[in-house]
Amino acid sequence: MAVYTQVDDQTLAEFLAGYDVGEATSFKGIAEGVENSNYLLETTKGRYILTLYEKRANPEDLPYFLNMMEHLAEHGIPSPLPIHDREGKALQMLAGRPACLISFLTGVSVHHTTENQCAALGAMLADMHKVGQSFGTTRPNDLSLAGWQELAEKTAARADEVQVGLANEISTEIAFLAANWPKNLPEGTIHADLFPDNVLFTGDKITGVIDFYFGCTDMLAYDLAVCLNAWCFDEEHKFVPGRAKRLIEMYDAHRSLSPAEIEALPLLARGAALRFLLTRLYDWLNPVAGAVVNPKDPLDYLKRLKFHQSIGDTAAYVV
Amino acid sequence: MAVYTQVDDQTLAEFLAGYDVGEATSFKGIAEGVENSNYLLETTKGRYILTLYEKRANPEDLPYFLNMMEHLAEHGIPSPLPIHDREGKALQMLAGRPACLISFLTGVSVHHTTENQCAALGAMLADMHKVGQSFGTTRPNDLSLAGWQELAEKTAARADEVQVGLANEISTEIAFLAANWPKNLPEGTIHADLFPDNVLFTGDKITGVIDFYFGCTDMLAYDLAVCLNAWCFDEEHKFVPGRAKRLIEMYDAHRSLSPAEIEALPLLARGAALRFLLTRLYDWLNPVAGAVVNPKDPLDYLKRLKFHQSIGDTAAYVV
Repeated sequence: MAVYTQVDDQTLAEFLAGYDVGEATSFKGIAEGVENSNYLLETTKGRYILTLYEKRANPEDLPYFLNMMEHLAEHGIPSPLPIHDREGKALQMLAGRPACLISFLTGVSVHHTTENQCAALGAMLADMHKVGQSFGTTRPNDLSLAGWQELAEKTAARADEVQVGLANEISTEIAFLAANWPKNLPEGTIHADLFPDNVLFTGDKITGVIDFYFGCTDMLAYDLAVCLNAWCFDEEHKFVPGRAKRLIEMYDAHRSLSPAEIEALPLLARGAALRFLLTRLYDWLNPVAGAVVNPKDPLDYLKRLKFHQSIGDTAAYVV
Repeated sequence: MAVYTQVDDQTLAEFLAGYDVGEATSFKGIAEGVENSNYLLETTKGRYILTLYEKRANPEDLPYFLNMMEHLAEHGIPSPLPIHDREGKALQMLAGRPACLISFLTGVSVHHTTENQCAALGAMLADMHKVGQSFGTTRPNDLSLAGWQELAEKTAARADEVQVGLANEISTEIAFLAANWPKNLPEGTIHADLFPDNVLFTGDKITGVIDFYFGCTDMLAYDLAVCLNAWCFDEEHKFVPGRAKRLIEMYDAHRSLSPAEIEALPLLARGAALRFLLTRLYDWLNPVAGAVVNPKDPLDYLKRLKFHQSIGDTAAYVV
C-alpha cells in the first residue's frame, strides 16, 4: 500500500522510449496493491499503470499472470491489458525489479456492495470463467488445502494469542475439509482473490477487474465461494442473503452451475473463509516492519467460517 | 508518502455532491506529500487532487495556504486552484480530517535538474514573488532563526550520533547567522520549500508548482537561496555553477535583485542549508513509527552548508 521502488523521470523516459505510448505528462505513485509498487502514468497517448514487482512476487509466476490478463482482456473481460514494447515484450526489468506497463481502467472500487453490484459481479465472474477455458496455461493454487495446512502449521503455536481455541478450530476445520474437499468439479482459470478492492465500478456496471496475482487453476465454483465471502457479508460480518442470491443467480444465468457444484458451495465457502482467515492470521502474527496498513482482523473470517458451518445446504444462500 | 485516512466510495459521493464537479470515475490514493493523505480523483467533469490534512498540519494555517494557492493560480502561476463547493467553501471536513479539493496539474517532477529547468525555475519564482506582493495575508516563517534555534536545542544532545562534532557546528553556525542575518531585504510571500519534488515539468516548461504548506512571509531572496540548495547540487552534493547561474540570472531578469540581496545570497544560502540540515536531523533522530520512507540524510545539507561557508561572495554562484 505504498511505493517501495522509486522511478525517477530519466529512468521513466528511457523505459518509455522502448514503447509506442508517447511521452509522460504525469506520473504519480499510487497506494494500490499491498505487495507491489504502482504508478499511474499519463502520456501524450493515454493512461497506464506501471507495476514494479517487489520481493514477495515470484518472478517465475509473472508471465502466467500477464498472459492471463491479456487473454481475458482480449476476450472482452475488463481486465488490464499488458502493453508490449516495440520488440513485443510485456515483462521488463526496471530499477532492478520485474516490471510491466498495463492499461488503465476507469471506475471506483466500492466499500459497501449492493445487490445490483453483486449481480454484475456474478455475471462477470461467469463470463471470466467461460473465457478462461481457452487460456492454455495452468498454475496450481498455492493457497488450497496444502497451502492452508502449511499456514496452519506456521501459525499454530501463536494462533491462540488472537483468540483462545483458534489453533484447534483451524486444525479441526482443515481435517474436515481434507476429508471432504470436492474432487470432480469443473476446473479452470480463476481469479481467487476477487474482493471489492479488485473490482472497479461506474455505477452498477463493472468497468475493471484488477490484481490477478493470485490467479490460478482450480475449481470454478471455488471462485464463486470466495466472492460469497468477500461480497455477501455486512460491516458486522453478518450474511446478507439478498446479495448472495443475486450473485449466485446471475452467475448461474451466465454459466450454468451443475448440481454437484451447487451442492458443494457451502463446503467451498468454508474453504475460502479458512483461506482468508489463515493468510490474515499469518499477517497479523507477522506484521511487516514499516508497513503503513494495519493487518486486517483474521477473526472477521472466523465469523464467516462459522456461518458456512452452520447452514444446512446451498438453499440457505439463495433464500 | 502514503494514504493515512481511507475515504470510501459512499463518503466520496456524498462529499462530491456538495460540489459542481460531476461524479467520480476514478479515485486512487497517491503516494505524494509526506504529511497528508492525497487522492487523485477523476470525475465526469475533470481531474482533481483531494487532500486530507493529517495530524502534523495546523488547521489554523490551512486557510492561509489555500488562499495563497488561489491567489497565485488566479494570477497566472501554475499552482493548484482550491475548488469551492456550492456554498463557496474550499476548506472542508471529510472523514474526520480537514480536507480540500484542488485542481490537478499535469507534468512530471524531475530528479536530475538541468540548466534549462533551473532557468525556468528562476523565471517562475520571480513571477511568483511579484504576484505575491498583492496577496494581502501574512504568516511568519516558523523555520527561520527562532525555529532553527529550537530545532538545534531539540537535537543537540544526539546530533553527534550522526557525526561527531555536528552539534557544535550547528550551534556555531546559528550564532553566526543570528549575528549577521539580513534585516532590511525585500519581503513577501514565499514558497519556502521549492524542491524539485514540488515542481512539475513538461519538457523544460513548468506546468505545476505544488505543496505550499511551508508558505509564509519572509525575504524573497531567501526563497531563491532555498532553490540554490535544492536545485544546484549534483548527486554527490557538489555545486553545479551552470545551474545556479541560469537560476539567478533568470530570476533577476524577471525580478531585479537589489545589490543588498545579491550581497546577502551566500548568507541566506547558509541559512537555507542549515534549515534543511536541522529538519532532516530531527526526522533522522525521531523516525515516525510505521513510515515507509526512510528519513533523508541530514549530512547532505552539511555539505551544502560548508560550500556556502567556503565561497567568497555571490560571484561564486554565477561563474
